[in-house]
Amino acid sequence: MKTQLSKSPADLQAKLEGQTRYVHDMRLPGQLVGKILRSPHPHARIVRLDVSRARAIKGVVAVLTGEDVPHHTYGPTKFKDWNILARDRVLFIGDEIAAVAAETDAAAKQAIAAIEVEYEELPGVFDPEEAMQPGAPVLHETIAGDNRPMRIALERGDVERHKQEAAVVKSGRYRSNRIYQGHLEPIGAIASWSDEEGITIWAPSHIPYRARETYAAGFGLPEDKVRIVVPPIGGSFGSKYVLKVHVIAAALAMAARRPVKIIMDRYEDMVTAHPRVPLTFDLEIGADREGNLLYKDVVVYADAGARVYWSPNVIATACTRPDNIYRFQSAKSEGHLCYTNNSPTTCMRGFGNAEMLFAVESVIDEIALELGMDPAELRLRNIVRPGERTIHGYRLDTCLLEECIDKVKAISGWERRADLPPYRGMGIALANHVSGFRAIDPRFDGSTAVLRLKGDGSLELETGEIELGQGMSLSYARIAAQVLGVPEGSILVKSGDTGRYPFGIGTLASRSTVMGGNAAKLAAEALQRRLVSLACEVLGKGASLEDGRIRYGEETYPLSEAAAWHRARHAGEELTVRETYVPDTEMPDATYYGHPSPNYPFAAHVAEVEVDPDTGRTRVVGYWAVHDSGTIIHETMAKGQVYGAVAQGIGWVTMEDLIVEQGRVKNPSMMDYRMPGARDIPNIEIAFLEGEDPNGPLGAKSLGEVALDPVPGAIANAIAHATGKRGYELPLSAERVWRAIHST
Amino acid sequence: MKTQLSKSPADLQAKLEGQTRYVHDMRLPGQLVGKILRSPHPHARIVRLDVSRARAIKGVVAVLTGEDVPHHTYGPTKFKDWNILARDRVLFIGDEIAAVAAETDAAAKQAIAAIEVEYEELPGVFDPEEAMQPGAPVLHETIAGDNRPMRIALERGDVERHKQEAAVVKSGRYRSNRIYQGHLEPIGAIASWSDEEGITIWAPSHIPYRARETYAAGFGLPEDKVRIVVPPIGGSFGSKYVLKVHVIAAALAMAARRPVKIIMDRYEDMVTAHPRVPLTFDLEIGADREGNLLYKDVVVYADAGARVYWSPNVIATACTRPDNIYRFQSAKSEGHLCYTNNSPTTCMRGFGNAEMLFAVESVIDEIALELGMDPAELRLRNIVRPGERTIHGYRLDTCLLEECIDKVKAISGWERRADLPPYRGMGIALANHVSGFRAIDPRFDGSTAVLRLKGDGSLELETGEIELGQGMSLSYARIAAQVLGVPEGSILVKSGDTGRYPFGIGTLASRSTVMGGNAAKLAAEALQRRLVSLACEVLGKGASLEDGRIRYGEETYPLSEAAAWHRARHAGEELTVRETYVPDTEMPDATYYGHPSPNYPFAAHVAEVEVDPDTGRTRVVGYWAVHDSGTIIHETMAKGQVYGAVAQGIGWVTMEDLIVEQGRVKNPSMMDYRMPGARDIPNIEIAFLEGEDPNGPLGAKSLGEVALDPVPGAIANAIAHATGKRGYELPLSAERVWRAIHST
Repeated sequence: MKTQLSKSPADLQAKLEGQTRYVHDMRLPGQLVGKILRSPHPHARIVRLDVSRARAIKGVVAVLTGEDVPHHTYGPTKFKDWNILARDRVLFIGDEIAAVAAETDAAAKQAIAAIEVEYEELPGVFDPEEAMQPGAPVLHETIAGDNRPMRIALERGDVERHKQEAAVVKSGRYRSNRIYQGHLEPIGAIASWSDEEGITIWAPSHIPYRARETYAAGFGLPEDKVRIVVPPIGGSFGSKYVLKVHVIAAALAMAARRPVKIIMDRYEDMVTAHPRVPLTFDLEIGADREGNLLYKDVVVYADAGARVYWSPNVIATACTRPDNIYRFQSAKSEGHLCYTNNSPTTCMRGFGNAEMLFAVESVIDEIALELGMDPAELRLRNIVRPGERTIHGYRLDTCLLEECIDKVKAISGWERRADLPPYRGMGIALANHVSGFRAIDPRFDGSTAVLRLKGDGSLELETGEIELGQGMSLSYARIAAQVLGVPEGSILVKSGDTGRYPFGIGTLASRSTVMGGNAAKLAAEALQRRLVSLACEVLGKGASLEDGRIRYGEETYPLSEAAAWHRARHAGEELTVRETYVPDTEMPDATYYGHPSPNYPFAAHVAEVEVDPDTGRTRVVGYWAVHDSGTIIHETMAKGQVYGAVAQGIGWVTMEDLIVEQGRVKNPSMMDYRMPGARDIPNIEIAFLEGEDPNGPLGAKSLGEVALDPVPGAIANAIAHATGKRGYELPLSAERVWRAIHST
Repeated sequence: MKTQLSKSPADLQAKLEGQTRYVHDMRLPGQLVGKILRSPHPHARIVRLDVSRARAIKGVVAVLTGEDVPHHTYGPTKFKDWNILARDRVLFIGDEIAAVAAETDAAAKQAIAAIEVEYEELPGVFDPEEAMQPGAPVLHETIAGDNRPMRIALERGDVERHKQEAAVVKSGRYRSNRIYQGHLEPIGAIASWSDEEGITIWAPSHIPYRARETYAAGFGLPEDKVRIVVPPIGGSFGSKYVLKVHVIAAALAMAARRPVKIIMDRYEDMVTAHPRVPLTFDLEIGADREGNLLYKDVVVYADAGARVYWSPNVIATACTRPDNIYRFQSAKSEGHLCYTNNSPTTCMRGFGNAEMLFAVESVIDEIALELGMDPAELRLRNIVRPGERTIHGYRLDTCLLEECIDKVKAISGWERRADLPPYRGMGIALANHVSGFRAIDPRFDGSTAVLRLKGDGSLELETGEIELGQGMSLSYARIAAQVLGVPEGSILVKSGDTGRYPFGIGTLASRSTVMGGNAAKLAAEALQRRLVSLACEVLGKGASLEDGRIRYGEETYPLSEAAAWHRARHAGEELTVRETYVPDTEMPDATYYGHPSPNYPFAAHVAEVEVDPDTGRTRVVGYWAVHDSGTIIHETMAKGQVYGAVAQGIGWVTMEDLIVEQGRVKNPSMMDYRMPGARDIPNIEIAFLEGEDPNGPLGAKSLGEVALDPVPGAIANAIAHATGKRGYELPLSAERVWRAIHST
């Protein structure tokens, strides 16, 4: 197993049957077991580090400390605060101090236990607002003298004036929590080294090219001396971007000159993996007496933890994205990204947007309540419409948000809301998202596809984007198959190897369907043109491609025939086209204004809940999700996205919480970190309002993240409706809801 | 080490320093040792085969017999007479019966020794002419009922009429012998298997795509389920095309599900590897009294051995190629390829052509002697000239053969020939060759190059052709560098992986410089156009590429800048061009008439020898080689080709002989098979008559084989001149020359 090879039905079948082999199942013969010694302290100076006993253990092949590895400033964003292993200081519980590679698991564990470290504990800081105070211990002097690597301050329109004019103002401090992404496959990698080709890492990363660039910088190597091969990914939801474990496996492989595999166990994964960035929002929204939203004003604090992973993008999203749902006349955002001695935080599905929408949709319901308006009605009055340019510059070529609200009201029986029994409530929330985001890499955006006609008439489609279970390969195969009129099963989608396939920004920002799908479409169209022109050359003018066969007069020929024609004319080389899709977007400017995505999906969700007043426990009893994601390319996979997202959102809002105190994860096990089971999930009714978007492949817009974005708001509003009490902090756990009910 | 990565100086430097790592040096961690049980009999029925004791040996992971492997008819040519392992019958000493994969060399050897086989010996046939007789044991009933898989019969003009008209007729039965190619690196491979990607074989093959197609057929797999990765090749000279050892390694890897490495030792290599096809020529040439050659008539017998490797191409070449040097008015060839119970024979440098030229150039000297003409003069009177179409249809756009003869006379001091002391002689011989051959694959010919601009401004050139030490990578880098004005060292030539690089027919028929070089040139020109158009788009009209930098007005920019411009416009993907060169040639027709190569190199060589009349031993005391290979792209490597070829020819003609009696190699060691040492090689003076050929990249024609083609004839003629006795059978060993001198 070396790469992602997805052929439509075979891939799903293999997963269903448990045949798919993940990095965990891989065994490069002779590979070593790698393990990492991690800091038990949230902040400490390393006074003494002695690995001599570890090195002497039988079966130990390599032991590395910070003294044995290169020291380049590197990191996945512009904030280069990573190391390979700690040298002087550790910054969080789990920070990597030393690593071993050994013949057996037992020898590796024994070696880790034999490493002697003396620490001098240092004062830590665990709250972003405290971290900003003068006198707080500073984590990265060279990056940010005051623990604040990034600040955002933007304003559109005149918020101060609208504050004067507003008839209704609602505000509050909302908090979103740390969520463990809950990937079934723990984080891990295998790395190998060769003098000729450098580092190869088999790593389930869905942004392998960024990983390549980051790791190469870490070792001071040219980008092309690092190759990332991506095996099937066993769940990520944002956790498997660019990870220190990959780097440490590579360092061990270089030292041992043998392949090294590191797979975390669940405990290590939960203690040191990187949860959703917790955000605090001081939010205020004002409206006039008719319910027209006038302004939104927010200050966001984000806890990056001890190093920057993807948190800058999270806070930037939180400060802008949800504003593009409503016709706010003015908006102001202030954002503070802060270092703390907590484990670094990073992406999770819908990052920034879902959290901010929890707050925004809560406050909008508060305004409706104050105005005595139906919350759906208030939203209908304020939402953006097709053809508009939003407050931050998004160009809405299509937008069926109004229809989504109407539809979700209809299917949920929204009119029941007024007559529900006590402790039963219904809540609505809206969401938008992007289909790729222009600013992920300021240098470029888009995607490239290579499409190759094989000798047997089948097709290979190569992409730099990554399948992580979302159905990317199925979608690309369907798009190319529709263009060419061939069976989907005849297209093998290949991806997941930076050394072999075209460049791809990767699977994030809900970009795979629209970006890679448009590239697949362009490649299929190019192949069609090449096939027709080849057929005309061979058979005569008027030859065509119909239903996946070459037609000339009454005669038809299979594509294997065309493959042979091409090879005969091109020295045996296969007919290969390479097409790049470059979206017609605008890079957001310094004030975050721009049109960053080819199109924008929308959703309106309704949740119905029942709260037990004695325990505070919320049961979601009904859920309705209506989506405008343009044309739905693969309905089964699309529904899967929504089911999964709603289930994930129910877990997030009603139960999940990675509890961290003084930098220590208090519940690092699946027993103590409760995720929803089948009984927690109600019937979910889904409707897609399909309309062809001109910028999506076959008219598609994204779906993966917009399906999660409204869930916290919808459930929070339903609980508020059921209990009459607003919840400000996620999760709206039984204890918190009980306290709210019983507060005065 | 996984592939061929040649960067001009680094590659040579690594070889000089012994740093290059060959398949022998590779170690896939955990790989097993593979060994083969081979038949001790030239022809026998397998009565009993019991591997149970072998399977029980500790450390043995897999034992395979003919019962355990697929049975598809396959083989590298259209004669599908290969198996993977023998089932019922063995056909030569060395035929593969069983194979084992074990943890250690000792266990593998022990297992081989523990396999029990009972044979029923069968009568064998060891001479091609005997094999054609009725009643001879038939080797492959399904291929050829009479042991003759291939016959050639062609005639141009009226040979019978010219026989009547000829004033001088010379004839004789000439024989060329088995030559061991003498590669320093013994034959071997590593194979691995994965369910997802099938078979990967690390095999030093210089025609890996043909190997892929052949092996896939052997396992009944689609072509794309076999991947051949070509490490640096430690010498081949034709021995490393398509080999059973590769197939057996793959079968073992599939069974063991671990990588398996088989490396032959020198004894096994010499007993079972595949020497130059021995040929017998009954040749007659007639001329008129003025010395105009009228006709050539030849019958060729070729010993294919027990299976067909590349011998059909050898006999076809022998029957046609040398006829294109002279203006024969008619020519007739009859060829018989025959199975025998000898080890299969195959290619060696200059195959068919060098052997036939030994005979033709000998007979032409005999005619000159009879006519009392200077042999050089007789040749000058009869050679082909530029602009002509030869007797078999070769279109000679360039031909400096006349100049070659003049020049070699001048530098060798040919006029000394008349006054040499006794037992000293000078001989001249001519040669031609092709630069690729249209009929290698009837489906197509040519080559494809992919050229990629990397982020740092360096270039990667991908080719399907193979470096085997001839300097291909240096040539391609130089060709592309000249077109683009960049330093050669900035171009990394990548090849040797059927899974990653474009299709290539491979390195044979002296095709790499002209075929792959033309593709490299087209790719460089395409990249140049793309770079200029990109620069005009970015900077403005009038931007240009000069000396490897972008120029606009007074400003210049490095290519790394252009790389960034491209990536910015193409979603991060590198600027990549893919160009195919398809030669303007004609497929030879059923009578072998056609124009099969883009151009034709020529050579005139002179050898000076001293023969010891007491021992018969020949010492080559002087050697002059003048070549028309068009523009010389890399003079150092070109001279290396000629030095090596002449040394190889001296060995062949004066000493080398793989002696096979009753199917048994009698001298399978480098002690008993004498190859020339430094003291056997005289000073070799080389001159290149450079003229630009319109069809070669930068004007080049081929060189690798034409440098060997004339050597046997030149030395044979020099010995005849020195001794007054004609030698008819190679090698012209001391014993044979002594016998000739002392014959009456």
